[in-house]
Amino acid sequence: MRAMVKLFSSSWFAWFLLSALVSVNVGVEARVRHYKWEVKYEFHSPDCFEKLVIAINGQSPGPSIVAEQGDTIVVELTNRLLTENIAIHWHGIRQIGTPWSDGTEGVTQCPILPAQTHVYKFVVDRPGTYLYHAHYGMQREAGLYGSIRVSLPKGAKEPFAYDGEHSLLLADWWHRSTYEQSTGLSSKPFRWVGEPQSLLIQGRGSYNCSLVSGLNAAGTGSVCNATNPQCSPHFMTVVPGKTYRIRIASVTSLSALNFQIEGHNMTIVEADGHYVEPVVVQNLNIYSGETYSVLVKADRDPSRNYWAAVNVRARKPETPTGVAIFNYYPNHPKRRPPTIPPAGPVWNDTSYAIAQSQSIKARAGFIHTPPSQSDRVITLLNTQNLIDGFRRWSLNNVSFTLPHTPYLIAIHQNLTHAFNQTPAPDSYRAKEYDIFRPPPNPNATQSDSIYRLRFNSTVDIILQNANTLNPNNSETHPWHLHGHDFWVLGYGIGVFDPVNDPKKYNLVNPIMKNSAAVFPYGWTALRFKADNPGAWAFHCHIEAHFYMGMGVVFESGVDRLGKLPDSIMGCGES
Amino acid sequence: MRAMVKLFSSSWFAWFLLSALVSVNVGVEARVRHYKWEVKYEFHSPDCFEKLVIAINGQSPGPSIVAEQGDTIVVELTNRLLTENIAIHWHGIRQIGTPWSDGTEGVTQCPILPAQTHVYKFVVDRPGTYLYHAHYGMQREAGLYGSIRVSLPKGAKEPFAYDGEHSLLLADWWHRSTYEQSTGLSSKPFRWVGEPQSLLIQGRGSYNCSLVSGLNAAGTGSVCNATNPQCSPHFMTVVPGKTYRIRIASVTSLSALNFQIEGHNMTIVEADGHYVEPVVVQNLNIYSGETYSVLVKADRDPSRNYWAAVNVRARKPETPTGVAIFNYYPNHPKRRPPTIPPAGPVWNDTSYAIAQSQSIKARAGFIHTPPSQSDRVITLLNTQNLIDGFRRWSLNNVSFTLPHTPYLIAIHQNLTHAFNQTPAPDSYRAKEYDIFRPPPNPNATQSDSIYRLRFNSTVDIILQNANTLNPNNSETHPWHLHGHDFWVLGYGIGVFDPVNDPKKYNLVNPIMKNSAAVFPYGWTALRFKADNPGAWAFHCHIEAHFYMGMGVVFESGVDRLGKLPDSIMGCGES
Repeated sequence: MRAMVKLFSSSWFAWFLLSALVSVNVGVEARVRHYKWEVKYEFHSPDCFEKLVIAINGQSPGPSIVAEQGDTIVVELTNRLLTENIAIHWHGIRQIGTPWSDGTEGVTQCPILPAQTHVYKFVVDRPGTYLYHAHYGMQREAGLYGSIRVSLPKGAKEPFAYDGEHSLLLADWWHRSTYEQSTGLSSKPFRWVGEPQSLLIQGRGSYNCSLVSGLNAAGTGSVCNATNPQCSPHFMTVVPGKTYRIRIASVTSLSALNFQIEGHNMTIVEADGHYVEPVVVQNLNIYSGETYSVLVKADRDPSRNYWAAVNVRARKPETPTGVAIFNYYPNHPKRRPPTIPPAGPVWNDTSYAIAQSQSIKARAGFIHTPPSQSDRVITLLNTQNLIDGFRRWSLNNVSFTLPHTPYLIAIHQNLTHAFNQTPAPDSYRAKEYDIFRPPPNPNATQSDSIYRLRFNSTVDIILQNANTLNPNNSETHPWHLHGHDFWVLGYGIGVFDPVNDPKKYNLVNPIMKNSAAVFPYGWTALRFKADNPGAWAFHCHIEAHFYMGMGVVFESGVDRLGKLPDSIMGCGES
Repeated sequence: MRAMVKLFSSSWFAWFLLSALVSVNVGVEARVRHYKWEVKYEFHSPDCFEKLVIAINGQSPGPSIVAEQGDTIVVELTNRLLTENIAIHWHGIRQIGTPWSDGTEGVTQCPILPAQTHVYKFVVDRPGTYLYHAHYGMQREAGLYGSIRVSLPKGAKEPFAYDGEHSLLLADWWHRSTYEQSTGLSSKPFRWVGEPQSLLIQGRGSYNCSLVSGLNAAGTGSVCNATNPQCSPHFMTVVPGKTYRIRIASVTSLSALNFQIEGHNMTIVEADGHYVEPVVVQNLNIYSGETYSVLVKADRDPSRNYWAAVNVRARKPETPTGVAIFNYYPNHPKRRPPTIPPAGPVWNDTSYAIAQSQSIKARAGFIHTPPSQSDRVITLLNTQNLIDGFRRWSLNNVSFTLPHTPYLIAIHQNLTHAFNQTPAPDSYRAKEYDIFRPPPNPNATQSDSIYRLRFNSTVDIILQNANTLNPNNSETHPWHLHGHDFWVLGYGIGVFDPVNDPKKYNLVNPIMKNSAAVFPYGWTALRFKADNPGAWAFHCHIEAHFYMGMGVVFESGVDRLGKLPDSIMGCGES
């Protein structure tokens, strides 16, 4: 990013030409793309407030992985943190045949120790927009994430046309360290992480420095500097009249977001690596872990720039709008639009949220028809609970904890003492539970028990939302499945009806995704085929919620795997 | 500590009686003392400013290890940090026969992973006052430390009399996290850790909360509360006319300290676990890693309390005096003395510092006479350097870096590729180097090369101080040797003269220690016998200095060791 800024300051036009050039597909055959990353702490000021971030090769967001379908990605990652381990998940990459490269600490690998170099190797088998991010403790929140863009191979054509493209990685940002956040979550009394201080677009936000006292805690310097170039807004330069593909990915730790470009319609054409039937929207809801491509035509008054804006949804916003500049060439890309950034739709308009999610269907010609029946239905009621006075999240009254030995290893080596062998529960007592009230008995149990799925079977997941511990409160949870895509069969409000609701499933053209939300007091029905041997996490993508137990693990076909690589070993039982 | 405060608030007199009872030696045979520790982050306010500390069983300082000579200590330590590893060093315990329990990450063990339980097992073979603390990254500064007190076995008598005892652990304290500190040290431009915000006595200090803005960075609450009971001063209750042994240990990360009890003389009787010829002082210089016992008679006006005070020495102080209350029974132990806490001697009076160190000799009847000759002399010139623009410390132009494979393992398993096999240099070009000026060429090399010592040979170490990178500046460095005690043969100012200075060595009654200072522009001569098979760190005990390369490693007799325990393995080469 710094390099870019530097380049720009000498000649932003040169940069603009260069970026236009890069966006043209240069055809090469499937190949190995080798990345060498050093991960360490650095002082950055992404929203003008100086804070430690976990940077990759000096950058947060880290370097983008840009590849073509069929390429093999090799990331040689060296942990240069002093005392802290790492694991990185390649979000949306199914890791077919390489379940050990999924990067999920405790599920598919042991953490990477300081000074250790770990090699992730996997094939990007499908074009689309993806993410990578830390999957260990709450390191994602420290800025350890980046973008993956996979384009079509030479000669192949997208089912839509555009003249150039831009990528936007969206994040939320706190000034407290992840250590403080996670310690607060596991303290008595419970300390919630709170709403983020800033929203970042491509790693850039803008905190109001007047809210911070002049000196940092140590009294050694100013911690907030509104003129720091690191926090000048990101800009996307467009030529009037041209159409752009904007790849938008959300790696937020907490916030559901709404994205818009002031005064411009957007046409949604891709979601989570799948083409969708074009939908024109004025703004886009995007939940943590989701990715979209939208087409935007630069068809407005070209004499000025426009705001690209993100606003918090689904939680009462306490965070200012995050902005980037939609820059009409030849206006100066740092020229601020003359308007106030748009505020987005009302944060708690759930009907609007559901309607937009429901409107997204697989694109004709690219439909993967789901199996008409499932072999097993797993209903997951999520509740907020108290365990020994600690606040936790549970599924069917079980709050998930990661074991010390990664499941993939434990199952493959038959280490039956490494985790609880009792199957996790497939359902809850729906008739006895009132999802509209706080849990009558908030006690739950903690367990590292999992779901073992018959290989190649078809599984339905019903995410059933409920009231939290606070009266009249139910939250939106973005769920993410590792190793597979699922079909989104339907959304509803209230208690899922196992007799009637399945009759309304969309089995014709459901979108396939790896991440989908369950809405307040609602349910979301998903279907997937357990056809990828491995152990795979399925969890709420809110980092604090997964830390508090809101996740499960699916195993299938591990017995079909050959020898596991030594590189994922080194912790827990053996 | 909380339990104590609670007890006190119900009846401090009950607590006083209890503590008097505990201080009586209850004779039992040598036995195994089992400790079960859980290490995790907690929010504490040791100096009224709320900050994350690494606590053991909820405490920082951690629980005291109290044992009798000959006891076996078993510490079953579970790492409950989320993403961070741990190692704990038992400072002053020589680990005879158990070199793998020394707890030095990179030297004697791999770090202990999150969720892992590691068992340290060792014998406390000698009575005295010791310490334990983290020996990994800069975790010591986060509060991961505690006291070890080893008393004489049943029936045996100290060579001095006292009526009761108190323990004081001294520390310095920063409000920035250790991550920020260590990242700053390895940044360009270099960011020094700065002087500490507070000095802590038994984990309690008092920051001036008016210097802190009302809200923490996240705006969620007050970070400094002067009335927090966690930061009320520690007190030592004494009965008028009685004599007390006060065990004083310094675990500071940076500061050399001076300790005194307002208006009371102190008689030094023990240093680093060795009896010393009694020396009466008004105040005691104590360098990081040192321990002392002093006798104090409560012989002053009993109608009031007195300050016990610590002040910074050897660096220009920017930290307020740290205080505890020397409480004359039956005055209320929280009653503040009517006086201003004493300021201590002038911080840069080096002659005073050297004179006090030189005055401490082995106690008659307890003298271990050193060998009259050494087999090898290693002179270590310490210089401040720049390597690739990073500021580092070097010994004989080599800046020390820890390898990924602990030396003990690498040497024992003959993994010659695990570290640089070139021997580290035994000396520097004394005739060409001007210790009174900044290094003419500040470049140095980084290496993990070590010193391999013939088993049972006698080795002299000459610590030679020099000017830092700044003109007219030379610092005091407290050096600590693992696995052995050394004889302190002499101190001097200027360049060590290998012909004439050894003639002035004290070979009659030198004190044995594990930690000793080298003074500005001075030298310190140490002798030890390499009679403990293992790999042992010898380093400046200033945490930032060791991190910046100011240390070496000695190996001897590793070939005499049997199988190493599996528990120290799991990182680096194998």
